[in-house]
Amino acid sequence: MPINAVGREVPSEINGQRFKPFAGDLKTPPEGRRAGSLIRMAPRSRSKVVNSLEEVIKKVGLEDGMTVSFHHHLRNGDFVVNMVMETIRKMGIKDIRVFPTALFPVHEPLVPMLTDGTIRRIEGSMNGPLGEATSYGVMRETAVLRSHSGRVRAVESEEVHIDVAFIAAPTADPYGNLNGVDGPSACGPLAYGMVDAYHADHTVAITDHLVPYPAHPISIFQHQIDYVVPVDRIGDPQGIMSGTLRITTSPSRLKIARYALEVIDRVALRDGFSFQAGAGGISLAVTKFLGDLMRKRGIKASFINGGVTKYVVDMLHEGLVDVVFDGQAFDLDAVKSLKEDKNHIETPLAMYGNPYSSGGIVNMLDVGVLGATEVDIDFNVNVNTHSDGLLLHGIGGHQEVAAGSALTIITVPLYRYRVPVIRERVTTVTTPGEVVDVVVTEHGIAINPKRDDIIEAMRGSKVPIWDIQDLQKKAYQICGKPQEPKTTDDIIAAILWRDGTIIDVVYKVKK
Amino acid sequence: MPINAVGREVPSEINGQRFKPFAGDLKTPPEGRRAGSLIRMAPRSRSKVVNSLEEVIKKVGLEDGMTVSFHHHLRNGDFVVNMVMETIRKMGIKDIRVFPTALFPVHEPLVPMLTDGTIRRIEGSMNGPLGEATSYGVMRETAVLRSHSGRVRAVESEEVHIDVAFIAAPTADPYGNLNGVDGPSACGPLAYGMVDAYHADHTVAITDHLVPYPAHPISIFQHQIDYVVPVDRIGDPQGIMSGTLRITTSPSRLKIARYALEVIDRVALRDGFSFQAGAGGISLAVTKFLGDLMRKRGIKASFINGGVTKYVVDMLHEGLVDVVFDGQAFDLDAVKSLKEDKNHIETPLAMYGNPYSSGGIVNMLDVGVLGATEVDIDFNVNVNTHSDGLLLHGIGGHQEVAAGSALTIITVPLYRYRVPVIRERVTTVTTPGEVVDVVVTEHGIAINPKRDDIIEAMRGSKVPIWDIQDLQKKAYQICGKPQEPKTTDDIIAAILWRDGTIIDVVYKVKK
Repeated sequence: MPINAVGREVPSEINGQRFKPFAGDLKTPPEGRRAGSLIRMAPRSRSKVVNSLEEVIKKVGLEDGMTVSFHHHLRNGDFVVNMVMETIRKMGIKDIRVFPTALFPVHEPLVPMLTDGTIRRIEGSMNGPLGEATSYGVMRETAVLRSHSGRVRAVESEEVHIDVAFIAAPTADPYGNLNGVDGPSACGPLAYGMVDAYHADHTVAITDHLVPYPAHPISIFQHQIDYVVPVDRIGDPQGIMSGTLRITTSPSRLKIARYALEVIDRVALRDGFSFQAGAGGISLAVTKFLGDLMRKRGIKASFINGGVTKYVVDMLHEGLVDVVFDGQAFDLDAVKSLKEDKNHIETPLAMYGNPYSSGGIVNMLDVGVLGATEVDIDFNVNVNTHSDGLLLHGIGGHQEVAAGSALTIITVPLYRYRVPVIRERVTTVTTPGEVVDVVVTEHGIAINPKRDDIIEAMRGSKVPIWDIQDLQKKAYQICGKPQEPKTTDDIIAAILWRDGTIIDVVYKVKK
Repeated sequence: MPINAVGREVPSEINGQRFKPFAGDLKTPPEGRRAGSLIRMAPRSRSKVVNSLEEVIKKVGLEDGMTVSFHHHLRNGDFVVNMVMETIRKMGIKDIRVFPTALFPVHEPLVPMLTDGTIRRIEGSMNGPLGEATSYGVMRETAVLRSHSGRVRAVESEEVHIDVAFIAAPTADPYGNLNGVDGPSACGPLAYGMVDAYHADHTVAITDHLVPYPAHPISIFQHQIDYVVPVDRIGDPQGIMSGTLRITTSPSRLKIARYALEVIDRVALRDGFSFQAGAGGISLAVTKFLGDLMRKRGIKASFINGGVTKYVVDMLHEGLVDVVFDGQAFDLDAVKSLKEDKNHIETPLAMYGNPYSSGGIVNMLDVGVLGATEVDIDFNVNVNTHSDGLLLHGIGGHQEVAAGSALTIITVPLYRYRVPVIRERVTTVTTPGEVVDVVVTEHGIAINPKRDDIIEAMRGSKVPIWDIQDLQKKAYQICGKPQEPKTTDDIIAAILWRDGTIIDVVYKVKK
């Protein structure tokens, strides 16, 4: 097997499909043209409503071996994946490739379908039980994980051909205009579903809030939707929304946030700057502290790219930022703002960070603040597996935000539960060190040596600055040398870089 | 040559490309898949600004014989088509196919380029001088005219492959986010340019209002734009906006509007109904009268599909309509409303009335009020040529609005300048009688005999109801039998139905 640019041995074929080894960001140029979607002619009818999933699955002609897709805006509150897959199972359709943007613990009912012949493989993020089951070798074929933008690229290039897209729609009208800002299962944007709506051979919206024509606002437009299926409930608001997100209260995590803030302040903070931070406790703290600092300094950001939370919305309302780009809403404040604020813009995922486009939002980011399960002394980052080898998380937008941001900061504790986070070698490479600039821990920061400008900017700071190898040694001192995960040689998942090259593989974990 | 479904003899080949004869609306099913656009990889750069048209034309590699496209949101105030084509001419690039959505009298400077080798043909609407020159046989190849939606279909199916799209952008940021609602050349939506932005091999935005990143709102997104060229002025507001549109003051035209209103009232007016009417004097009067009637009756429309004018915006603000769909803005009130009102929605042209999609807005229209240059006793409508045979107008959305609307009304005077408008045979068939329901003149109305329901609904009305042949005879009585246009056998233009079949051809006019 070839060795790729981060030193990992990777196969050149996965599930019979050829993939190139990772060669570095923007080092593998695209080839050819995008896939063309199937041309349909809508019949003379003013309603696309079909009354059951079984009926619609018959109408679209779903067959053994086909690919069905889902978006994950309903997150851990989603009912749609389970109800569609259960219907498929009951109908006796086999060997389905499931192509979600992401799956969550709520989707555990799919685990038995991995062995009963319904599902041959899942290509998408698997947070929790499905990832764990996959790690133990339960899935017949090999899982393929892509970043948000990598998935868009894969659909556009027909690396993955979607036969039927099942699109959860918190609001839909009978002719297929959809949005996510209204209804009992409101989730905010429908950005993850857009590329599926455009490219799938058949498109089915599933809604629990059918409104008179025309639904508005419109996130996904009627001319891309073939059928609308009303159901009782598409989700559980408790699981869709994260509730009121809490800033971390841990003193060591707060220290990480403060260190990150100082790096941002010294390197990137200026009028018109831009940033992206997630919804984790440390990221929220960074966002909050950054807002405070901007207020104090009279600095205004040009845009924040989200994952949007209340903290971001507050900054928008306060005039601390011109524009919020929204691919995903984490709380009801974000949903409400998306609905009401003209400068809170839902962005098609194709605009996010697909390298095979005329340029994504991430290319304009000054600062990206990201997390990790592990970081190694080459600044490689793992967000997919835990140190025991289990595949428990998706890639999200990690790769493209890291690749695009002028300043990419990874905020991590030095160790978790006596297991070093800063290590000699990450269990899995999700994001290569070449696009990571600063690693921030509660013990201090490590700066990628190729970033002289950041090293220079941090001179005189009271933030402890470490060589990353020393940080790693410190972690090992405290925790002891970490154990290797107990894995076999069987590859259970491929991790693709956003350009479709293989950056790493995940091995089967011994029970 | 085959005879098509409206009895016209049409060629099976135009410019070496094969076309089917018109077979009736929705009678020619689509084949295959949409075209896939060229995949590009944006370089590491935060600016796509190129400082001259010549430089950008070199960068995109425009060569002899290629196709360049334009949108017409700047209408008769547009400077972009002329400046791009003049640059191409000066650079000595030859045999260009010009593929605009529409051209106007302001584009007369292209006439000499039809003979000097710069332009081999124009495929698009030609309002005025270019149409006239084409009628006299000046264009080397044959013009092809498509409706708004037919053009989308043609691009999607690669019936027309766009090498370079030049997109006039009233507002742009350096990374290619575009809108039409701000800047000195504000025009409203950029809907006509969207399919070009998606499908063209190369995309160039041309702007006179470069704003800091990110421009917002965003009509065309950065990931589809390769270059941004700032210029002094992209247009003349006097020609972009129609000024304050005037309702007709002619008593006979007002009578037409009142008759049309009565038809709408008896056939379609009810809570939640929907309609589309244009920006002509009669259409404006119908819109205004309809608003008055709705107010009086307490009736609210679900949506108006535009061409949007002040009259429509007033209805939106007054709560007489839920949603305005906007593909084109005719005055500054419409632009302002598009910018500010959340339920004033810019619709991608692909959503308008493309039959080869999962269903356009027009399919949901209850009432469409349209004009004509001629109507014949088979209810066929001509909007392209005058009775002297000259090709002076584009198709616009006429075909799809007529085809989609449950009630399609053609409002025309019985004659113009002593030339009958209601005739035995239209000079050119733009829209077939099968999708036309009622013809309204100042002398009364004619109802398509296949619409028993409308005949029934109009029983007891004081509006004079005619057999269309009697209306035609009345016109001939007043004006005399019209002269045949003096044409040769040379085909100078093909008129395509929205599905890409040939509905008619236009012949060369003798000088």
